[in-house]
Amino acid sequence: MTFAMAFHLILVMKRTFALFFACIAAFGLHAQKNDTSFISRLASEILVNGEAYENLRVLTKEVGARLAGSPQMQKAEEWGFTLFGKLRPDNLLLQACEVPHWVRGGKEEAIAYETREWETNKNPRKSGRSLAVLALGNSVGSQKPIAAPVIEIKSFEELEKKKDSIRGKIVFYNYPFNQTFIRTFQAYGDAVQYRVNGASRAAKYGAVAVIVRSLTHSTDNLPHTGTLRYDSAYPMIPAVAIGLHDADWLSKTLQTKSITIQLWTHGQFLPKVVGHNVIAELRGSEFPNEIITVGAHLDSWDVGEGAHDDGAGCVQTIEILRAFKVLGYKPKRTIRFVLFANEENGLAGGLKYAEDAKNTNERHVFALESDAGGFSPRGFGFSGTDAQFEKIMNWQPLLAPYGATDFIRGGGGADIGPLQRNFETAVAGLQPDSQRYFDYHHAASDVFEAVNKRELLLGAVNMAALIYLVDQHGL
Amino acid sequence: MTFAMAFHLILVMKRTFALFFACIAAFGLHAQKNDTSFISRLASEILVNGEAYENLRVLTKEVGARLAGSPQMQKAEEWGFTLFGKLRPDNLLLQACEVPHWVRGGKEEAIAYETREWETNKNPRKSGRSLAVLALGNSVGSQKPIAAPVIEIKSFEELEKKKDSIRGKIVFYNYPFNQTFIRTFQAYGDAVQYRVNGASRAAKYGAVAVIVRSLTHSTDNLPHTGTLRYDSAYPMIPAVAIGLHDADWLSKTLQTKSITIQLWTHGQFLPKVVGHNVIAELRGSEFPNEIITVGAHLDSWDVGEGAHDDGAGCVQTIEILRAFKVLGYKPKRTIRFVLFANEENGLAGGLKYAEDAKNTNERHVFALESDAGGFSPRGFGFSGTDAQFEKIMNWQPLLAPYGATDFIRGGGGADIGPLQRNFETAVAGLQPDSQRYFDYHHAASDVFEAVNKRELLLGAVNMAALIYLVDQHGL
Repeated sequence: MTFAMAFHLILVMKRTFALFFACIAAFGLHAQKNDTSFISRLASEILVNGEAYENLRVLTKEVGARLAGSPQMQKAEEWGFTLFGKLRPDNLLLQACEVPHWVRGGKEEAIAYETREWETNKNPRKSGRSLAVLALGNSVGSQKPIAAPVIEIKSFEELEKKKDSIRGKIVFYNYPFNQTFIRTFQAYGDAVQYRVNGASRAAKYGAVAVIVRSLTHSTDNLPHTGTLRYDSAYPMIPAVAIGLHDADWLSKTLQTKSITIQLWTHGQFLPKVVGHNVIAELRGSEFPNEIITVGAHLDSWDVGEGAHDDGAGCVQTIEILRAFKVLGYKPKRTIRFVLFANEENGLAGGLKYAEDAKNTNERHVFALESDAGGFSPRGFGFSGTDAQFEKIMNWQPLLAPYGATDFIRGGGGADIGPLQRNFETAVAGLQPDSQRYFDYHHAASDVFEAVNKRELLLGAVNMAALIYLVDQHGL
Repeated sequence: MTFAMAFHLILVMKRTFALFFACIAAFGLHAQKNDTSFISRLASEILVNGEAYENLRVLTKEVGARLAGSPQMQKAEEWGFTLFGKLRPDNLLLQACEVPHWVRGGKEEAIAYETREWETNKNPRKSGRSLAVLALGNSVGSQKPIAAPVIEIKSFEELEKKKDSIRGKIVFYNYPFNQTFIRTFQAYGDAVQYRVNGASRAAKYGAVAVIVRSLTHSTDNLPHTGTLRYDSAYPMIPAVAIGLHDADWLSKTLQTKSITIQLWTHGQFLPKVVGHNVIAELRGSEFPNEIITVGAHLDSWDVGEGAHDDGAGCVQTIEILRAFKVLGYKPKRTIRFVLFANEENGLAGGLKYAEDAKNTNERHVFALESDAGGFSPRGFGFSGTDAQFEKIMNWQPLLAPYGATDFIRGGGGADIGPLQRNFETAVAGLQPDSQRYFDYHHAASDVFEAVNKRELLLGAVNMAALIYLVDQHGL
């Protein structure tokens, strides 16, 4: 077959296909026209009168960082409850759950010395280089400054090979973000094991602390925190993230010199605290027992302002309710708008939501989460049955004009994960453009100024449209 | 037909279609495999070793703003020539063209007074409100401060209706960006007439100056400049852009009060200057007479650093040459990498390039421009024949993994427009996500810090891939 012939055939096939779709369209014309029109009204309302950006300003600037258990967590709950209340949902509730209360306990420090110099002159701060570090979430404090020689480890394979050289050392995991992954969440998925498991893996061989290369491809030197998990079989050792410039400096310096780092961390767990999922509900007029959830997590790490992670998702969730109310939309199904507690270091909110749903025998048909930043929307990732995915794919042309062109299989969100596992609920996650996300993720740079108003609002438009479509047509 | 039946049919059709494509794929497998593999190598080279971001830093921070005719224009040409030279192209040339030399001539000012107060106490700066304004490009200076009452005009229709009230006034065009256009270039296209033609339209009815609402939906108060065109039939009156906060304040205040504005502008044209297109060339090995052009414009407005507009396009253009050279790519066709002179206020570079091409009877098969900012790529806009578009559409699956999913008809670029008109050359423009572009466009905020490294590099990846495909397969 020649290239030209192949082209001709494709053209013919395309025309047949177009004709076929025209027929389908004729049958579904009425419904589709209504959908197109309502989605256009949703978009105009959100893009022209949207309050999500101003709401985000208040959350980030007046509440600020809001780690589970902190006083700001409570303030954020009040903020969400009040905002929801003003929109007059049919129901409004605080769903209590126990959340961990980890505190950083003070500014961590890491000072690097040439080992030779350190051994001859143990005078902290005199000649060392102060490194940009940030204790990982859940990390223990070091009690007192620890000083130990550093060993660079580029992978867990290398750790295993060098297991006899680890004892008494500070392990420096220097596993870089893979720049060639176009979807940056893949780079995160690839590297996150060093942050989550690196401390215990190193403690197994006698390391006294770990320093982990930050999970970012940002061009700055800010360290990025995030949760770690201790394996109870091994000692809990302090763990910090290090900024990329300093990671590169350390790696380069270690090629020719022995380096000793003096490390202080102050993290500890205080007694658990009662936190809350903040939930607003619109009751369904036709199928009130079919529940659709849309949400994001209200907590953030304790650095920056939790603007992209996940203030953006919270204000988008609230914006959808606002737009529905302004347009007088009466849903067929029950829609829950949920600001989840404690996603970052425990998932107590998501677990509690699914547990209560199970106890009261609720029927959850769909859940949508926004937890990938307030960037320009590119699509949605779905987890559900083949039939559900086919149905959702059918709606892609309705959302594409608003930016959500990529509908892919696989996706959801941490907070709605328990729902998915308990009920086989179909779930989806908003997928904004991911190029900038890890520049800010869990770092001091995740502030209001890093969020663009239109990108944030466009995300809300696409989420609102998808929730509307599931409500109208079921799943 | 029931909904379920329709679904079933779609499924069947989709499977047939998939099978068909599988057949096509088998026939074109060898070519496609090579293409996939080379594009993947291009992407890795650019994403891992890319120098575009560092090059942009130098252009924006060490050269800075570089309006046609300015000393910085020459410095920018040297920068581009030197960078190209280091990459050892087959040819390297400076193509001379006469460019205009407009200068701002000093800081413009606009001070608003209540007219009543102004008339009783003409004491500038005593009690007035200083507005954020910026003379439009090509605007004349006011010689001396002009003071006149302001009339708000929301559209040219309103101007015509109120034509008898315009004489002796300063016309304040307050036509807002339409927030509901999802592609923001549509909002620009809709509103730009007030900036380009507003001065002469108002001068026709005796206005003494115009103040134009900035063409942006940014949340800040920065004014955005850009070119204006005087109609020689009417007096040339000063024209400035005003920031959105101040535009809104002025509009609101005018509802209840008469406002007089005292305006100074200092713009003038100096004698024309010789500028240059900076051109590097790789000679084609099989079809050297078929020329492919890829480029961007080197000039910028005189505020900010011209980072997105169009430093980004320049460093992407250079990056493509760099990647081709590093990978040892020997093109079949001749590829020209062009940094065009004077796009912003004259297009002398683009016109000269097309004119010389015509004089030497060159055959230009394709031209690609990047002049929509260094944001995350979403696709390409094409202008060409149906057959060319079909061919290009066929390559979409090869680029989609790198973000360029949207291939649409209509597109190109200002600098390659003359080529397109002279030769009916197929042209394309990179279309990055447009949500943030007009936040920075022609404003003091268009600086290096507004560009994200990965977004910039991904744009270069997709451009490089498209140039490669046209070179390999023709168009």
